Amino acid sequence: MASVADIGASALINLLSAIAFLVAFAILRLQPFNDRVYFPKWYLKGIRGSPTHSGALMSKFVNLDAKTYLRFLNWMPAALKMPESELIDHAGLDSAVYIRIYLLGLKIFVPLTILSFAVLVPVNWTDGTLVKSKDLTFSDIDKLSISNVGAGSKRFWAHLVMAYVFTFWTCYVLYHEYKRVSIMRLQFLASERRRPDQFSVLVRNVPPDTYESVGEHVEHFFCVNHPDHYLTHQVVYNANTLAKMVAQKKGLLNRLRYYQNKYERNSSKKPTTKTGFCGLWGATVDAIDYYTDEIEKLSKEEISERERVMSDPKAIMPAAFVSFKSRWAAAVCAQTQQSSNPTLWLTEWAPEPRDVFWSNLAIPFVELSIRRLIMAVATFFLTFFFMIPIAFVQSLANIEGIEKVMPFLKPLIEKKVVKSLIQGFLPGIALKIFLILLPTILMTMSKIEGYTSLSSLDRRSAAKYHLFVLVNVFLGSIITGTAFQQLDAFIHQSATQIPETVGVSIPMKATFFITYIMVDGWAGVAGEILRLVPLVMFHLKNAFLVKTEQDREEAMDAGSVDFASNEPRIQLYFLLGLVYSVVTPILLPFIVVFFGFAYLVFRHQIINVYNQKYESGAAFYPDVQRRLIIGLVISQLLLMGLMSSKGAKQSTPLLIALPVLTIWFHRFCKSRFEPAFVKFPLQDAMVKDTLERATEPNLNLRAYLQDAYIHPVFKDDVSEKLSAYDEEENNILVPTKRTSQRSTPGQSKYDSEASDTGGS
Amino acid sequence: MASVADIGASALINLLSAIAFLVAFAILRLQPFNDRVYFPKWYLKGIRGSPTHSGALMSKFVNLDAKTYLRFLNWMPAALKMPESELIDHAGLDSAVYIRIYLLGLKIFVPLTILSFAVLVPVNWTDGTLVKSKDLTFSDIDKLSISNVGAGSKRFWAHLVMAYVFTFWTCYVLYHEYKRVSIMRLQFLASERRRPDQFSVLVRNVPPDTYESVGEHVEHFFCVNHPDHYLTHQVVYNANTLAKMVAQKKGLLNRLRYYQNKYERNSSKKPTTKTGFCGLWGATVDAIDYYTDEIEKLSKEEISERERVMSDPKAIMPAAFVSFKSRWAAAVCAQTQQSSNPTLWLTEWAPEPRDVFWSNLAIPFVELSIRRLIMAVATFFLTFFFMIPIAFVQSLANIEGIEKVMPFLKPLIEKKVVKSLIQGFLPGIALKIFLILLPTILMTMSKIEGYTSLSSLDRRSAAKYHLFVLVNVFLGSIITGTAFQQLDAFIHQSATQIPETVGVSIPMKATFFITYIMVDGWAGVAGEILRLVPLVMFHLKNAFLVKTEQDREEAMDAGSVDFASNEPRIQLYFLLGLVYSVVTPILLPFIVVFFGFAYLVFRHQIINVYNQKYESGAAFYPDVQRRLIIGLVISQLLLMGLMSSKGAKQSTPLLIALPVLTIWFHRFCKSRFEPAFVKFPLQDAMVKDTLERATEPNLNLRAYLQDAYIHPVFKDDVSEKLSAYDEEENNILVPTKRTSQRSTPGQSKYDSEASDTGGS
Repeated sequence: MASVADIGASALINLLSAIAFLVAFAILRLQPFNDRVYFPKWYLKGIRGSPTHSGALMSKFVNLDAKTYLRFLNWMPAALKMPESELIDHAGLDSAVYIRIYLLGLKIFVPLTILSFAVLVPVNWTDGTLVKSKDLTFSDIDKLSISNVGAGSKRFWAHLVMAYVFTFWTCYVLYHEYKRVSIMRLQFLASERRRPDQFSVLVRNVPPDTYESVGEHVEHFFCVNHPDHYLTHQVVYNANTLAKMVAQKKGLLNRLRYYQNKYERNSSKKPTTKTGFCGLWGATVDAIDYYTDEIEKLSKEEISERERVMSDPKAIMPAAFVSFKSRWAAAVCAQTQQSSNPTLWLTEWAPEPRDVFWSNLAIPFVELSIRRLIMAVATFFLTFFFMIPIAFVQSLANIEGIEKVMPFLKPLIEKKVVKSLIQGFLPGIALKIFLILLPTILMTMSKIEGYTSLSSLDRRSAAKYHLFVLVNVFLGSIITGTAFQQLDAFIHQSATQIPETVGVSIPMKATFFITYIMVDGWAGVAGEILRLVPLVMFHLKNAFLVKTEQDREEAMDAGSVDFASNEPRIQLYFLLGLVYSVVTPILLPFIVVFFGFAYLVFRHQIINVYNQKYESGAAFYPDVQRRLIIGLVISQLLLMGLMSSKGAKQSTPLLIALPVLTIWFHRFCKSRFEPAFVKFPLQDAMVKDTLERATEPNLNLRAYLQDAYIHPVFKDDVSEKLSAYDEEENNILVPTKRTSQRSTPGQSKYDSEASDTGGS
Repeated sequence: MASVADIGASALINLLSAIAFLVAFAILRLQPFNDRVYFPKWYLKGIRGSPTHSGALMSKFVNLDAKTYLRFLNWMPAALKMPESELIDHAGLDSAVYIRIYLLGLKIFVPLTILSFAVLVPVNWTDGTLVKSKDLTFSDIDKLSISNVGAGSKRFWAHLVMAYVFTFWTCYVLYHEYKRVSIMRLQFLASERRRPDQFSVLVRNVPPDTYESVGEHVEHFFCVNHPDHYLTHQVVYNANTLAKMVAQKKGLLNRLRYYQNKYERNSSKKPTTKTGFCGLWGATVDAIDYYTDEIEKLSKEEISERERVMSDPKAIMPAAFVSFKSRWAAAVCAQTQQSSNPTLWLTEWAPEPRDVFWSNLAIPFVELSIRRLIMAVATFFLTFFFMIPIAFVQSLANIEGIEKVMPFLKPLIEKKVVKSLIQGFLPGIALKIFLILLPTILMTMSKIEGYTSLSSLDRRSAAKYHLFVLVNVFLGSIITGTAFQQLDAFIHQSATQIPETVGVSIPMKATFFITYIMVDGWAGVAGEILRLVPLVMFHLKNAFLVKTEQDREEAMDAGSVDFASNEPRIQLYFLLGLVYSVVTPILLPFIVVFFGFAYLVFRHQIINVYNQKYESGAAFYPDVQRRLIIGLVISQLLLMGLMSSKGAKQSTPLLIALPVLTIWFHRFCKSRFEPAFVKFPLQDAMVKDTLERATEPNLNLRAYLQDAYIHPVFKDDVSEKLSAYDEEENNILVPTKRTSQRSTPGQSKYDSEASDTGGS
């Protein structure tokens, strides 16, 4: 049990380390040679040019202007300056709503902190049961918590009332946030410029027809059943092999370029490579010739494969993107059932072209259903039994094991320092590797489940990760033992006993979670802004692979908000805040600091760094709301358990109404707002259609949609045509803010600091 | 513990009483004066005329033809003769699918019975643990059950394998039945003649508009958002007061007719009545004059109210029936979201006109949500705490209580015979009354929940009743104590303990449930065919109220399949069959007999008696499937509990896969078939539209739909017009079977027996 002083010291250390990160960030970002690491968003938008073009050689790489260093924290107000509406224009609704989650945390927890410090801390502090009981294991933290209130005390009424107040406040904020986000989404969809997905519907499970090709079948079906509205369609090719070839070729090109660069710098020696795996063994050959040959070979294969895909009817998958003459008709088709067999002709909103996950488009209905069953079972086992393989690996990866496999290392390992290091380090490393790989594993599982868009894959992975965090981080920290042992214990306990067992341990774990918030939350967020991995990767690529300006563009890894693993982590902080708001209010300020700091950092990152891979229009928000409600209900159940163990039996039944009301509130919100995220109202579609017909009576929609949904590997020759269209309509439909912004010199308004480094 | 002989005796008694019912039925139904009680369906169809028109006076009332009595069981083959397709034509899909539930019971349980008698009974019988243990409390029944197998025996593998076989067989049958029913529904909808609900959508929560009336607002909204398809609409009047007046007037008319009849039969004395409540007190007046005056007064009020409703804009509810030019457009509108606010302009399929529950059409969204919360809580309390008020009433209704309230009864009550009778009878009567009232209570609760069609009200009530039966009849019989005590015990038990507690008691209750099946099932079904209550009511009405042929028509109470309380009862038999199929196979033949007998009886009733109030196209079937799956999962969990208590711990984990697979199967079936019951595929709509356009190019759809959705109280003057339309299209669209059947003399083909009594 840590005292307040301990916590303060720990907070100081973590604060200092966070500040160290920030200072490092402030210095690194001012160096022109890091510009593409810390401001890739502006490069991708085409507003910022390479700083290395002009000026003295030295100032190309190092910023020598001392004044700029003095203003090293200026990015913070700059990050807050951009108004939300422009942020949506700049980074998309997904990102704008994502950072609103942190703001939501502030909205919920700032009043909760104030209230609990005003009411609960005095109530807890003045009871002094712990002092009376002469129990020496308590700390000052515990004096402020519910543990300090004696069993059966009348003071629990304060906690009971506050539980109600907190729940109502949380629900109130959640209701308004959901309302706001759904309005933002509708406005976003309404104000959006013309996009192919507004007119298109993804049709899956096209039944086979002996007399017609898939394309003809689709055309006939929609001509008959949507006679006044059907416009065109694009079949989906099974181009997975081709896509693999393209990726392979890109890798080879990278290698070739690396050796070319090497040769240019040092032309005395022709670089060589080995033909075996990863150039590690095999015959030694001239590297440049070898890779040039390889690329040529692959290019030929690629062309023949490309031809095969385009001509082979078997390469056409039973799926198609069907486009309609109006948004209204697309909305109708996406929301209705087409055939009397509900497993055929499945229609859904087409994801936007870059959001499509192509390889999943052809999975038949029954197989989909079986895949989901298997993945549900796998998720269960992953969540509860992941420790088993890790323990197995740990048992193998001991000193003796290593000595057996690699006896030549024996003398090194036997040294005492090395030995103790390995013994201390090894057991943890398997777990660490697993945790780093976990998001990838979950994403693979979601892909197997057969979702057809990147955004839905992200959402599904987030759901799995949330379960994992809930069971293994939250419950795992409170109760000792592995997740499986907990599960085993839980199914042998009664429904009333489980919240009691968990609830009783809650106050004792407060200090642990405070430390967790500081280490994982504060320092983690500060680490996020430093972007160490992309920084290193960029400079490595820059050194070895970059030749042209375009190469440099490609070397830049803007990254994106990793929704699938970030959102469940935020949910953990919400859960902690809600659980401890009544129990140990001292934890709340730490949560508030986390949310405030993270809001600032992610707002900065979204403005300057991240480049979203897709735009789903905040389609993830219903998940966020649902998980928050889950957290709220968990906190209420645990409070019930804790209260009943504290001898406040008469007040516990009063708490039962809380989860009932909360769940009802969730159902109400769901029916009230969720349709805005799933369906597209006909009224809005009609408004947009009418407006478009009036402003652009001669629009050639067919030409616009012709190649919108083409597999990315076929896109090379089409992309220019498309972007031309984009540009043109931009000027017609959204002529104000976006274009005017482009013509102003750079992003100076919102990132004055950044322009110091010589951008644009 | 009853022996096989005891059960046999009980079976004999119940069989005899069932046969007595059947004989009574056979005799009563042959009497011409009961003809309208036992064959109302044919009268309502207009095929059968009153037998009292012709023949000798005596034979009008009593059937003297001895030959017909000899064939008194002929109704059984007659009931089976009508093929299913004609049954659907004759009685509608709802009824046809309803009796398929009994058939489904046979399909599941006949093979289960054969298999379990072939495999499990020998396995149980030959172990003989009970004999060895010299425990005298066992019976022959127990020897055949799983109780006879010793703890930890290898023989449990037989039960385990059979549990899998039974589950797979049940799922196989369920899958094919669901498939069959969904095809039947689609065929039914496709072959249906033109009905107003095919073209109409019920729009609720029309937002208020300051400048327009509801009608104008609806018209403008749909003209804008469905420009090519909108045809017409009908606003909904709040005619609840008017409907009450009409009902009141009908009651007064009945009374008037009663006194008129009385006066005609005995014209010496003018009948008198009292003006107070129910004619029990108040001033004595001439009855005929009094009621004539009252009716006149009420008629005037009714006319003014009718005018008020038609002219007052406040009497128009914010709901409307919107009709479209084609089925396609109606299908589109019903399945899509109209406005960006999903709580406004809510569209759903219009129920058919006679299915509409008018008074619920105007409930706003938020209120609906609150009502459902309150009713969910109320259902919980009703299910678990209903014993509390009943116990309270029972405590009041004892001998002393009665003597206090009504001291004049004291001498009578104090007599020993009467006293013991009352003491034996009173405690049960409160419960009995509650159970009789229960379906009405549940229906009222469903009405408060705000459902808009009679069919959905029936479905909701069935869901509540199912919960009640599950908790209070099934669990209540297995575990002692009230539902509340069970609940209390359950929440203090662990998740593994609950199935064990219940599972262990399962084999011991087999004889109880066998008796229950015979008393409630066999005798209940036999009572259903006798129709005692409608028989008595008909003759009472006939004696006092009937003057004209039309009165007699009205006195006839055809009744209908009471889905809301019958279906949950069937589910109990399914549950019992599934639970005991592995545990005590001897119970299965009783279930099989029940399903066979009930199938026969209800098929007869549906052909000859029931007149459905609405036709929902078997919309209830997904509920039936879901509850069957619930039963299956319960049986699997209880088997797991039982097995683990029998020391077969190593095989119990193997059973966990069963519920997982079953739930997955349910989800698969749900996504595969449920859309057929909820949505209407555009392809089918288009086919019907195209066909209709081809066959009837000059159809005036507007005139057809003009008055389709008018409140029944306004319908008097419109109904003739409507029926004329019905007739006309009948001849055009469905000219074959239906009309030809009408022209053949009566129903002789399927009810040869019935024609003996002089029908048609």
